[in-house]
Amino acid sequence: MNGFAHYLTQSLHRAVRQTPERLATIDGPRRKSWQEIGLDVSRLAGVFRALGLEPGDRVGLLAQNHDTFLIYFFATWWAGGVINPVNIRWTPAEMAFSLTDCETRILIVDGKHADLVPELRRLAPCLEHILALDWAGDGVTDYRWAISSTPPAIEHLRSGDDLAAVLYTGGTTGRSKGVMLSHRALTASSLGYVGRAGCSIGPVILHTAPLFHVGAISGMISGWLSGSTHAFVPAFEPEAVLQTLQEAHVSDVFLVPTMIQAILDHPNLNKFDLRALRKILYGAAPITPALMDRITRRFPQCGFAQAYGMTELAPVVTLLSPDDHRSGTGEKSRLRSVGRPTAVVEVRIADADDGEVPPGTPGEIQVRGETVMTGYWNRPEETAAALRGGWMHTGDVGAMDNDGYISIVDRLKDMIITGGENVFSVEVEGALASHPEVSQCAVIGRSDQRWGERVHAVVVRVQGSDVGGEALSEHCRSLIAGFKIPRSYEFVDSLPLSAAGKVLKQGLRDGPTVAGSTPKFEPDRK
Amino acid sequence: MNGFAHYLTQSLHRAVRQTPERLATIDGPRRKSWQEIGLDVSRLAGVFRALGLEPGDRVGLLAQNHDTFLIYFFATWWAGGVINPVNIRWTPAEMAFSLTDCETRILIVDGKHADLVPELRRLAPCLEHILALDWAGDGVTDYRWAISSTPPAIEHLRSGDDLAAVLYTGGTTGRSKGVMLSHRALTASSLGYVGRAGCSIGPVILHTAPLFHVGAISGMISGWLSGSTHAFVPAFEPEAVLQTLQEAHVSDVFLVPTMIQAILDHPNLNKFDLRALRKILYGAAPITPALMDRITRRFPQCGFAQAYGMTELAPVVTLLSPDDHRSGTGEKSRLRSVGRPTAVVEVRIADADDGEVPPGTPGEIQVRGETVMTGYWNRPEETAAALRGGWMHTGDVGAMDNDGYISIVDRLKDMIITGGENVFSVEVEGALASHPEVSQCAVIGRSDQRWGERVHAVVVRVQGSDVGGEALSEHCRSLIAGFKIPRSYEFVDSLPLSAAGKVLKQGLRDGPTVAGSTPKFEPDRK
Repeated sequence: MNGFAHYLTQSLHRAVRQTPERLATIDGPRRKSWQEIGLDVSRLAGVFRALGLEPGDRVGLLAQNHDTFLIYFFATWWAGGVINPVNIRWTPAEMAFSLTDCETRILIVDGKHADLVPELRRLAPCLEHILALDWAGDGVTDYRWAISSTPPAIEHLRSGDDLAAVLYTGGTTGRSKGVMLSHRALTASSLGYVGRAGCSIGPVILHTAPLFHVGAISGMISGWLSGSTHAFVPAFEPEAVLQTLQEAHVSDVFLVPTMIQAILDHPNLNKFDLRALRKILYGAAPITPALMDRITRRFPQCGFAQAYGMTELAPVVTLLSPDDHRSGTGEKSRLRSVGRPTAVVEVRIADADDGEVPPGTPGEIQVRGETVMTGYWNRPEETAAALRGGWMHTGDVGAMDNDGYISIVDRLKDMIITGGENVFSVEVEGALASHPEVSQCAVIGRSDQRWGERVHAVVVRVQGSDVGGEALSEHCRSLIAGFKIPRSYEFVDSLPLSAAGKVLKQGLRDGPTVAGSTPKFEPDRK
Repeated sequence: MNGFAHYLTQSLHRAVRQTPERLATIDGPRRKSWQEIGLDVSRLAGVFRALGLEPGDRVGLLAQNHDTFLIYFFATWWAGGVINPVNIRWTPAEMAFSLTDCETRILIVDGKHADLVPELRRLAPCLEHILALDWAGDGVTDYRWAISSTPPAIEHLRSGDDLAAVLYTGGTTGRSKGVMLSHRALTASSLGYVGRAGCSIGPVILHTAPLFHVGAISGMISGWLSGSTHAFVPAFEPEAVLQTLQEAHVSDVFLVPTMIQAILDHPNLNKFDLRALRKILYGAAPITPALMDRITRRFPQCGFAQAYGMTELAPVVTLLSPDDHRSGTGEKSRLRSVGRPTAVVEVRIADADDGEVPPGTPGEIQVRGETVMTGYWNRPEETAAALRGGWMHTGDVGAMDNDGYISIVDRLKDMIITGGENVFSVEVEGALASHPEVSQCAVIGRSDQRWGERVHAVVVRVQGSDVGGEALSEHCRSLIAGFKIPRSYEFVDSLPLSAAGKVLKQGLRDGPTVAGSTPKFEPDRK
């Protein structure tokens, strides 16, 4: 290692040394001190080493949110490994692709996902060792038995530019890509977050968003840097979240706008004592002024912060701070922006030739700084393209005002954000197009009161076909995750095409430019 | 460069791009926007390149605090150089030693120090180019003429582990040492500072402490990370500081306890409008509970923070935050501690064999993390000793309590802190011992109401001599800086010695263990 580059386990060392008795994790009735976590970490690292983990090897975790996430992160790094948490919303085929792509040999699986193990083993032969977190089965190793019977490992210190994570993200080409993030990039992103006035994490942070996702991981690292206690809920469920906010005296929570809506709409909201809550971070999708007004009135003691970022940037790029939110919702409001770049990145707005454009002019958002990914796993060409000229090309279109605030104008990458999840149109289009009765299709986001955006498909059927949305959704179900399946359909005779023959999606988004189109069907979200 | 390691000029890029019209600097009536600063920086960098600066070369500045410091820092890095600001409190011989030791060829000098130039040239022949900031003379280049007649330079980007600064600090062996700090170390230290709750810098920071010192440099970097405006006073003078606090609407200021005392004692204090003030950072010496009470009562809207650190750690190690200060001055008060380690360092308390000691036990404070120096300039052996085992050995003795708060117990290095300045006994002892009528001597700190500690000498005269303190101080004046000269003397027949023949200073500190000793003389501080 480089003697003094940043190592993500530093926060563990700090906590075990400085506050061994303080609570590290709260997961339902289970509470662990930093001292206990330290022991679990060094033992789980011992298990990984005993299973043959070499420095730089990837370790997976397939689980709902759980205090084991914290132990797994630290233990993987303690052993010299690289985290590769699995997106639980994916199909087994998608999961297997990511595990195979980066040759993950050790995977921890919780009871909720035990039934996927046989199929994953079949689709991802690289999986050599399954650690069963809270279940039993053939050919799997009991997690608790393993850590209680293995001596603690000596730390294999990796740091700085050393690889810390491979996180899979949807790609514009339809296949997901492994984003490589170093110890430095993940640390810098969180330092940029806690370094903004009013954004450091308070005594207790609750993890509601899924912890395989870079945003939640970054939130956890921010909590480590702030010396916080970490509370967990298995998944976002309003009643359980409210219960935990109260019982764990949660000070900081991340919620996407649809979660905020669900909490505000909860009939028993006022029965909970939520006075410990001090900061609500939201992101992944814009918030409406009406919703902002409601949440501000309900939680007057809270600061609000919005983050904009992407996996490739570890992920935080800009922050709209609590002070910015206090500017209100009037004419001069900052609420339509995603805020200003953090202290660890430099952001420019550039045209197609990477030339900088004047303030107020839309262009691609490009970023450089310590948070930039090392690259895409095993994809040197896509890496070079994304990082050309030393800048990460986000593919998002934005404009910067005269005070440095950035507004997102559009997405070059044609991504739909539905309930906080990213869906890439091209992947859904691929699934739809594989149906024999689909001639052409275009998938876009339509604004939706509940989900922010919903996945909407515009389809040209093959001559004579009368296939409907229900059949097309059924067809997609075996190919892509539930949240990616179109929730509404339009059937048209033709799609608007550019001179180059590309579908003009902007025309579809703007409204009914396609004659005779009518929404036909809206299946339930899986 | 490594594509994405941190570069200190990032903050300049961010400010020029995001807020070109916003005020960057306020120095008396002179105010500059970030756009103007950006142009000055690229032009001064052009001057450095025209004078033959190569990447990695050192550039010096010998000046009172001035907005040129900010331009000089950025321009040196923009040109690929390394800052080597000169301690203005040193004698010309001490200055020349530091300039010669690290072969600084370009030096900017302000009018206040113009008269030192001939002697510096004689003592430091490495000096090839003198840029005269606001004066004229033979063989010097006019600073303003140079930057107005030189085209802007293209940035030579250096970052991460690349050297950013060589800062000279007093050494235990009497000679000062050049501490090498990288772009990463200086950035990390400031990120650790602004990342602590309540510590990010507000709209305007005033630089009162001398900007050749790592603490003030770090304060400026923290201001850059927070997007603040920088206000300057030439030196600490209570009336000028109060005037600037009011006129520049200063929100953040660093003051050592003696400065706080001077401000509180100022007869016109209440005539100034200081409502913009939000945070007072103090450090370099402990504060008394009585003084803390006074300042808190006078500035109830302010948060208070204390930092402990050292040049070798770029410099911040621990912070006593505004929240910690709110714990009050009672039994459970944290005010006797220097707070907890920042989020970018790991601190351990170790015995003489580098073994960790239990909480509450005093031992050497050792630190690792991104802020650790690269080493001492051209001193590989002292570097290896200071950094052995991957930890910076601070030489300070401290204890950590069960909540991670650290109290400083003593100083291994035998250093006296007087009015916020570090004085190493061994250097003063060397000066005294060179007087022909001094047989033996020991220099210690004695507690002093005004200076925190004063330099106190215990002297054994040669037989038959009756030399006095006045003559000894006069002798020292040509050898060491004014603040290092003893302010009181005791004359004794012998010094208490250990079995190994070393002076037992602890005995001298404890009080009159030496029979017949009487303070004789207390010269005015220069």
